[in-house]
Amino acid sequence: MPEHTDRASDWMKGDGPFSDVVMSSRVRLARNLAGFPFLSKTSATQRREIACACRDHLMDSGIAESMLWVDLPDSSEMDRQILVERHLISRQHAKGGEPRGVAIALDESVSVMVNEEDHLRIGVLRSGMQLDDGFAHANQIDDLLEQRAGYAYSSRFGYLTACPTNVGSGIRISVMLHLPALVMTGEIEKVKQAANDMHLAVRGFHGEGTEATGDLYQISNQTTLGRTEQEMLADFQREIIPKVIEYEHAARQAMADRRTYLLDDRIHRAQGVLTSARLLSSSEALALLSHLRLGVSMGRIADIELGLINELILLTQPAHLQRIAGGRLDGEQRREFRAEFVRRRLTGG
Amino acid sequence: MPEHTDRASDWMKGDGPFSDVVMSSRVRLARNLAGFPFLSKTSATQRREIACACRDHLMDSGIAESMLWVDLPDSSEMDRQILVERHLISRQHAKGGEPRGVAIALDESVSVMVNEEDHLRIGVLRSGMQLDDGFAHANQIDDLLEQRAGYAYSSRFGYLTACPTNVGSGIRISVMLHLPALVMTGEIEKVKQAANDMHLAVRGFHGEGTEATGDLYQISNQTTLGRTEQEMLADFQREIIPKVIEYEHAARQAMADRRTYLLDDRIHRAQGVLTSARLLSSSEALALLSHLRLGVSMGRIADIELGLINELILLTQPAHLQRIAGGRLDGEQRREFRAEFVRRRLTGG
Repeated sequence: MPEHTDRASDWMKGDGPFSDVVMSSRVRLARNLAGFPFLSKTSATQRREIACACRDHLMDSGIAESMLWVDLPDSSEMDRQILVERHLISRQHAKGGEPRGVAIALDESVSVMVNEEDHLRIGVLRSGMQLDDGFAHANQIDDLLEQRAGYAYSSRFGYLTACPTNVGSGIRISVMLHLPALVMTGEIEKVKQAANDMHLAVRGFHGEGTEATGDLYQISNQTTLGRTEQEMLADFQREIIPKVIEYEHAARQAMADRRTYLLDDRIHRAQGVLTSARLLSSSEALALLSHLRLGVSMGRIADIELGLINELILLTQPAHLQRIAGGRLDGEQRREFRAEFVRRRLTGG
Repeated sequence: MPEHTDRASDWMKGDGPFSDVVMSSRVRLARNLAGFPFLSKTSATQRREIACACRDHLMDSGIAESMLWVDLPDSSEMDRQILVERHLISRQHAKGGEPRGVAIALDESVSVMVNEEDHLRIGVLRSGMQLDDGFAHANQIDDLLEQRAGYAYSSRFGYLTACPTNVGSGIRISVMLHLPALVMTGEIEKVKQAANDMHLAVRGFHGEGTEATGDLYQISNQTTLGRTEQEMLADFQREIIPKVIEYEHAARQAMADRRTYLLDDRIHRAQGVLTSARLLSSSEALALLSHLRLGVSMGRIADIELGLINELILLTQPAHLQRIAGGRLDGEQRREFRAEFVRRRLTGG
């Protein structure tokens, strides 16, 4: 397990470019080893062989300065949940009993899932808007692994993947955006519609199948075939995301100019409740932290760092909270502990 | 108009007996002049005669050290609304164009409505649980007026009143109670049921036809015939109200013992929102002030006086708020001004 689960890793700290709107950038490559079938067609023995081979390549190849291997069937449910909350593994990957695992760079900027939907899913994470940098890093890891492991590749289709939507480059680019003003003005619906028209997926904080809570939206490509990685990356880095950032900025300015009291009401109430509540559910905490984050981003709340808010968004999730508390807590106890934890952190008490 | 509408009169200050639960006590006597029909049967000329006669008696009789006469058709809508909010006239009395008025003692402990439903409605108000004292004072005024004015009285029925429910003693005893813990535990329904079984009326903060907001309930007798004033007074002073106070105290203790976090959550959130919101509706303000009042009454919030909260309950009402602001405000402006006013008063800023 990562060493410091009581704090945020660097890429979560919100100090990257455009961090007032962009929480994080992620590049993910789906790859499969040559000489093995896709996971749905493998025997138990083959799955074990794939897991071992991938682990060995990952741990030996100098992919990152130091990689940590987490064997998931051997891990506790709480540990797996912590990895989900830190966006180091998917919710699907946390489940099931098959041989599977994840290799994580010590700074948590890289996580490679083994035997998730594909044999390998290389994920690189960055703070703020840093897709180019993330892509370069993902490519570097990919090249090293390809040299050692050998990938399933077709000269006609490109990289072969379990799901046809990933065939080709196997790339998924996704950006986590904080869009509270677009939510307040209702314009978020137009953004979602535009994203759908461009065949982009708009998801919530926890990825596939989750609702957007805390005004956090993850925008990602849905298909890979027919466009090069560079084209897709350029779309995201220079067209799509800058456009959304521009819309969010315009909505913030419009709120500040024309609905000042409503804006400040949301922001200051959030701070008021976060620093006074004695019971806080995770969804309410996230919703309030979102409004507080808006206030800090817009300079309407002083003396609170964006990094602290990002950290609280991470640490107020159930598994992290219980890790900090040092033991299992039921729902009621979590709401009590969460309220106290947030209050203490925000008031410095 | 009363002189200091930017603050609470003494009886609203919440420093009377059992003020943790009892906001105020009120004794009201309905009386009609002999020699005139009830108001529904009078000509315009007669109504004018009644209004003049009552006013003269009230202003001359040394009823209070100093009485103020307010001619209601001559008053602005805002002034009349202020009197309603201060519980010095009824909502019905604020309406209509007929000759009517109210005589108010300078300390606002007495208000005598002229030409409301009856020719005279003598009201005496006290802080906390002081029905005996209020009743004695009402009687004293009643005797003075009776000597001068002469009342419609039947040796069989007692005092004659426009509505049969008031015939006899013409008395209505009512007590304004703050019952937040009974609301939180849901036991308020049992109290309301018991009150109904005893033929008592349970009403909201603004009397007849209003919903209970801010956990404020007004309990009063519904009928007068067949029981002496002393019997009814004894029921209220020594049986009914002490029982309700006991229930509320028990509910508060039960919350403190068994649902401590929930109780403190409500109390501290109320304080948090009241001191941070930038927009506050009157109903939200009242609901939050109620929870803050509970916290102060129970000693769970320090450095805030009960009197200040009672004052804010009064002053955050629309007409008072506009009087303080010095001019008409629309709904949005009132919510802005109310939030700022409450925040300033509670934080001493």
